[in-house]
Amino acid sequence: MAILEKQKYEALTEETAVQLVKELNIIPESAQVTCQEIGDGNLNYVFKIRDEETGKGVIVKQALPYAKVVGESWPLTLKRATIEANALKKHGEFVPNLVPKVYATDENLAITIMEDLSHLTIARTGLINGEAYPKLSGDIGEYLARTLFSTSDLALHPFEKKALAVEFSNPELCKITEDLIFTDPFFDHDTNDFEPELRGAVEGLWENNQLRLEAAKLKKSFVTEAEALLHGDLHSGSIFASETETKVIDPEFAFYGPIGFDIGLFLGNLVFQVIVREGEKKTIVLDHIENTWNVFSSVLSQLWEKESVEPFAKVPGYKEAYFQKIFSDTLGFAGCELIRRTIGLSHVKDLDGIEDSEQRISAKKTALATGTALILKRNEMTAIEEVITFLKEN
Amino acid sequence: MAILEKQKYEALTEETAVQLVKELNIIPESAQVTCQEIGDGNLNYVFKIRDEETGKGVIVKQALPYAKVVGESWPLTLKRATIEANALKKHGEFVPNLVPKVYATDENLAITIMEDLSHLTIARTGLINGEAYPKLSGDIGEYLARTLFSTSDLALHPFEKKALAVEFSNPELCKITEDLIFTDPFFDHDTNDFEPELRGAVEGLWENNQLRLEAAKLKKSFVTEAEALLHGDLHSGSIFASETETKVIDPEFAFYGPIGFDIGLFLGNLVFQVIVREGEKKTIVLDHIENTWNVFSSVLSQLWEKESVEPFAKVPGYKEAYFQKIFSDTLGFAGCELIRRTIGLSHVKDLDGIEDSEQRISAKKTALATGTALILKRNEMTAIEEVITFLKEN
Repeated sequence: MAILEKQKYEALTEETAVQLVKELNIIPESAQVTCQEIGDGNLNYVFKIRDEETGKGVIVKQALPYAKVVGESWPLTLKRATIEANALKKHGEFVPNLVPKVYATDENLAITIMEDLSHLTIARTGLINGEAYPKLSGDIGEYLARTLFSTSDLALHPFEKKALAVEFSNPELCKITEDLIFTDPFFDHDTNDFEPELRGAVEGLWENNQLRLEAAKLKKSFVTEAEALLHGDLHSGSIFASETETKVIDPEFAFYGPIGFDIGLFLGNLVFQVIVREGEKKTIVLDHIENTWNVFSSVLSQLWEKESVEPFAKVPGYKEAYFQKIFSDTLGFAGCELIRRTIGLSHVKDLDGIEDSEQRISAKKTALATGTALILKRNEMTAIEEVITFLKEN
Repeated sequence: MAILEKQKYEALTEETAVQLVKELNIIPESAQVTCQEIGDGNLNYVFKIRDEETGKGVIVKQALPYAKVVGESWPLTLKRATIEANALKKHGEFVPNLVPKVYATDENLAITIMEDLSHLTIARTGLINGEAYPKLSGDIGEYLARTLFSTSDLALHPFEKKALAVEFSNPELCKITEDLIFTDPFFDHDTNDFEPELRGAVEGLWENNQLRLEAAKLKKSFVTEAEALLHGDLHSGSIFASETETKVIDPEFAFYGPIGFDIGLFLGNLVFQVIVREGEKKTIVLDHIENTWNVFSSVLSQLWEKESVEPFAKVPGYKEAYFQKIFSDTLGFAGCELIRRTIGLSHVKDLDGIEDSEQRISAKKTALATGTALILKRNEMTAIEEVITFLKEN
């Protein structure tokens, strides 16, 4: 029986994954293929299938009905596979060159079948290894501007926007963010995870009521402000890169949220590289931060002028106010990401990978201080150059 | 054939409306009843059915599949009947004494069958006739605090809040508000409707870029900020009142939006009475405005302290910041309502009913100036007393 005809979930094997892409004529029935499961097994299966003759590579990604984090397993909606597939397709309408091609999706099986990108490297890994990725910030700036503008009230008829907001309602994955980024790190919560040497600094955060007040406001923005269809998890581990290409993957956290969240997550993760790099290599990352914002705001500005359907778009000062709000949100969300990835659940290898204990603790303290400052100063800062100067000095 | 079994829409008649309430055993089969259609025929049929023996009154409200405004008719979703019925039931969980009892609803027929409230008067009509309604502001303050708190992220698990936000997605009726309150009055749009004597003042609005900038921000808040399940159209025509009772009706515009919108619409409509009344009667309305905010904020504050599920609720300063945001939004939305009801589509009898032309034009100019000031000063004002002082002086 054909796999899709069963119309129900079953975990794929290497064999049935191959059968599936052949049933769908993505690879010809007669082709000689290899198949390898390359996922980390925590959230998804990822099958890499290769047509030996043509060299065509295909990825079959299947969501697992649970998540494994720190050894534990908890149930997790399969709907996230549909969200991910639909977000890839929706964002692909606006930036086809910056996301993987989707060949097929199936809700029952919770799968997305897409272009194999394994000639590229996960940007986080590459950056840790000292890569420069000259196209990274320009491409991500473009990705951010086009996907966020095109799914916002600035570009869509209100019926279409509200239909998308319903389609991408994503409570379970949003809750992970609400807890792990916006709540737990600011309280003495058992999901937190940090070295004993950091306890003083962490308790300092918990006692910093000004910081917690601002974190509360940022969380409120995250849970109430449906500005655009976000990627929702745009850290450097969700980006494939090379010297010449950039592809954004894994939008399973996609939902309608505040525009600054996607930008802030990306920039926050670049800040880890600012902290761990020195000299010219640090400058490359600072330039990426500056360029991401500049490309984002310049492309968004052009789209605003040329394509906005909002009658108020031409009112003097509105664009500037809109941009300043995004800028301020961006810094705040970047600050939350810096804190969360340092002391909350789910760390980053940029910091945890530092072998020397003293250096690692020092880098983590810098990450916490930088995150705190970005959150507290986000409304005072008005230009990306100020942020760059601040990052250079700290 | 029983009406409900047909499972499809058909316009009720006085006869089938009676048949329906008997099928549903809301009134016994054997009862002698009278039935009268009392709607205005623009948006809904409203059948008033009375059991002659017991005196029990029942309202059958049925949505029409179109709206008639200024002679024209355009198609309008029947889903609004479901939204209205579900909003009455949801808000009724928190303020059962302040909304009509719902006996039955049916999605196919687009009907809500509810308590007859015709012993009460529409508050707008009563206020225009000089009624004091001593319970009005206390009841509405309570209604606002309890419905808005209880449907917000402060009170609900995020899964429940997001499921409600999807259930109450209401694009068509929101678009009416987006156009008629937030957009058209600020542009030279053909839906606008005002006397030639107002043209100078109206062109003044259209040329006031500061005002249009602030209107743009308020519109953005309306279309993006899913803070709580709003009534969505809480003007004094959506409230039944007497000396001893208050009931909020007609929540067909219900959706997840900014909390200040409901409060602002109600207060804005009271401001019309401030403008047209003199002496002691004016003071009564000013007191209602002050008391609405004070009861709202004091009940919300108690709920916040005792029932909030948000871990940040106890962080010093968060409640104050949250309230200030609501206060500022409230003034801005009240200002938009004042302008819209004066020069946009769908006026209010408070102003249009003034027979003397000079007095009417003067009152309308005051409404425009007051609306403009509330929008522009909303971030400077921090206490309801300032608003009262401002209203007394203008």
